Amino acid sequence: MAAYFDDLETRSADRRAADLARDLPLRIAAAKAGARALAASLAEIDPATVTDRAALAGLPVIRKSDLIEAQTARPPFGGFTTRGPDGFDHLFQSPGPIYEPGRIEADWFRMGRFLAAAGVGKGDIIQNCFSYHMTPAGMMLESGARSVGASVFPAGTGQTELQVQAAAALGVTTYAGTPDYLKTILDRARELGVELRIAKAVVGGGALFPQLRQEYAHRGISCLQCYGTADLGNVAYESPAMEGFIVDEGVIVEIVTPGTGDPVPDGQVGEIVVTTLNRDYPLIRFATGDLSAVLGGISPCGRTNMRIRGWLGRADQTTKIKGMFVRPEQVAKFVARHEGIARARVIVSRERDRDVMVVQVESDARDVVPYENSVTEILKLSGRVKIVPKGSLPNDGKVIDDQRDYG
Amino acid sequence: MAAYFDDLETRSADRRAADLARDLPLRIAAAKAGARALAASLAEIDPATVTDRAALAGLPVIRKSDLIEAQTARPPFGGFTTRGPDGFDHLFQSPGPIYEPGRIEADWFRMGRFLAAAGVGKGDIIQNCFSYHMTPAGMMLESGARSVGASVFPAGTGQTELQVQAAAALGVTTYAGTPDYLKTILDRARELGVELRIAKAVVGGGALFPQLRQEYAHRGISCLQCYGTADLGNVAYESPAMEGFIVDEGVIVEIVTPGTGDPVPDGQVGEIVVTTLNRDYPLIRFATGDLSAVLGGISPCGRTNMRIRGWLGRADQTTKIKGMFVRPEQVAKFVARHEGIARARVIVSRERDRDVMVVQVESDARDVVPYENSVTEILKLSGRVKIVPKGSLPNDGKVIDDQRDYG
Repeated sequence: MAAYFDDLETRSADRRAADLARDLPLRIAAAKAGARALAASLAEIDPATVTDRAALAGLPVIRKSDLIEAQTARPPFGGFTTRGPDGFDHLFQSPGPIYEPGRIEADWFRMGRFLAAAGVGKGDIIQNCFSYHMTPAGMMLESGARSVGASVFPAGTGQTELQVQAAAALGVTTYAGTPDYLKTILDRARELGVELRIAKAVVGGGALFPQLRQEYAHRGISCLQCYGTADLGNVAYESPAMEGFIVDEGVIVEIVTPGTGDPVPDGQVGEIVVTTLNRDYPLIRFATGDLSAVLGGISPCGRTNMRIRGWLGRADQTTKIKGMFVRPEQVAKFVARHEGIARARVIVSRERDRDVMVVQVESDARDVVPYENSVTEILKLSGRVKIVPKGSLPNDGKVIDDQRDYG
Repeated sequence: MAAYFDDLETRSADRRAADLARDLPLRIAAAKAGARALAASLAEIDPATVTDRAALAGLPVIRKSDLIEAQTARPPFGGFTTRGPDGFDHLFQSPGPIYEPGRIEADWFRMGRFLAAAGVGKGDIIQNCFSYHMTPAGMMLESGARSVGASVFPAGTGQTELQVQAAAALGVTTYAGTPDYLKTILDRARELGVELRIAKAVVGGGALFPQLRQEYAHRGISCLQCYGTADLGNVAYESPAMEGFIVDEGVIVEIVTPGTGDPVPDGQVGEIVVTTLNRDYPLIRFATGDLSAVLGGISPCGRTNMRIRGWLGRADQTTKIKGMFVRPEQVAKFVARHEGIARARVIVSRERDRDVMVVQVESDARDVVPYENSVTEILKLSGRVKIVPKGSLPNDGKVIDDQRDYG
């Protein structure tokens, strides 16, 4: 089993909580002092009171749309960084467009812990097929490689025959990139009759299907995934135990009801909200728009941090019903209006060429009328309300379930 | 005028010669000790005797074809590096394929001196339109930017509309890339009505035509060029004085008769041969295949190193005459055979659908017969020899002048 990156990974729960109680108030104070956007959004918050996850859950959530709006008003970083643009080594542009900063220093994007867990280190030569152009993906891997002492061939994607030649000539041991492109390289190598020495693969940026992982294993390649974003850097990673994604030691992950900042009970599917403790670009409760769930227990590899189940879809379920936008935030507002509601789910279907909306409500109440009135008021649409037993709605993170078939 | 990068740039001729006499023997000894290919090719050479340019000119020349051959036999670096592949941060592949190493440390590729001369430094944001994929161009600029404290947006080429958006949002001050692509960006910005703040351009990898430089100047952008290669890093650069390319302090440049290792008199056009003092990848007398000439005198900007005229074409003039390859090396051998020959030039033309070869010889001799015999023996072809006065052949670096019109 690959070595630990540092001893933070194996902290006891008490030690982890104590470290959080010490670090979180300091970092939030520093973020408020250094980043004007956070100074504004956290104006009412006394950092000294934010000593645990429960207190953190009271802070406002930052959505990608907030970030883009702030960046447009105050380019390039919208007041969310503690340095000016020329205080960073790198500036990136991701689709949106949304701009991200980066620094050269080892492990700034926190990829090193993932690489160490995958057994990548000194002596390894990584073929980095993440793109270096515009977006930070390539540089994210770079900063991780540097922190574990591995060498990098900056390959990008495409020109597969040259990729095969280079992998052979350079003695590449490790592939980094999206899950699928490795197969393209391996297939081409086979066609060309070129023997490769790739034994490890570190992948991200897309789903790794179990069948593909198995195919890599058959070819002698151990393939592990990470989950991260351009704004946050790495968030969680697989270890050789292959039981879920272990949360990185530099972030705090919450799973919340989509469209809200309210944590769901452990095990329920919800939106991934991340707080980074990065000093240069502190993001506090950043909503990723991705769905996951907490996986109970502790990884058999000995890493003690919380685990999540990996990527389970997109959280943004905003849809148009009868020509009107319905957003998860509205459903959350409806749930909050009535005390007895545990969860609710808007189901949209199509009957005789017309949209039909049913709102399923987990509740002990019998009378649907107050619910229907609220639906009309908050969702701006009339719809039938159906009361269902508590705990009966599926655990898939959906609050708006669009069942219309446009095929 | 932009600040000097360090005080090496303004050394007196005596100080420079003394530094060379001290450094060159040490570096050649270290290269022999660390790089097995150099240990072999320099086996007969006592490093202690190589204290000046004259002594250096006695060492064998390394051609790109030698490097590719050695790399194929002993991948990836052919025994020319003093570290193994995993001792480098980066490994690259350039067309050939030919493989190059790289390190992250500031200014490993010696681009910082050029950026400093161009006035690029702390506070500047560089849009780096050199490619980061496969070849080292992008990383070469990176290591230079780091050494002068500038920030980099790793842009690559293409997606011009996004390039324009990013340049505006990030407050880009400096373009880096090939000479032409900046115009594409500026034209698109104008179409889109986007105002950019680019005031400096640092270009390489292709010819900058005077008209284009003037157009950039009209748009308020000062554009300076560098000359370098993937194997050597930067070799020479323009300063605001814009009088030729000043040789970088980390290399020794010689101009030689193409196909030989023999320096031509100052001012004559010949092949650029470069010795780098890099500790990790020392290249001693590497023939670039490019033509230039020494430009006499010293730059008015105060930098005292030798100047060259920039890129004047390709040195490799190997051609097929009557179905036989004729190489510059053969012409050099012919010149060396006869004491009285100053220079020679093979001229190929086409008469009545047949190749015709004339060898022009700068000589005081009257009898062409011994020359014609040598031509037949060395070039394996019969040809007419024409004696011309010394100094009458054009100064364009050509030893084989192919005048056949295939149009």
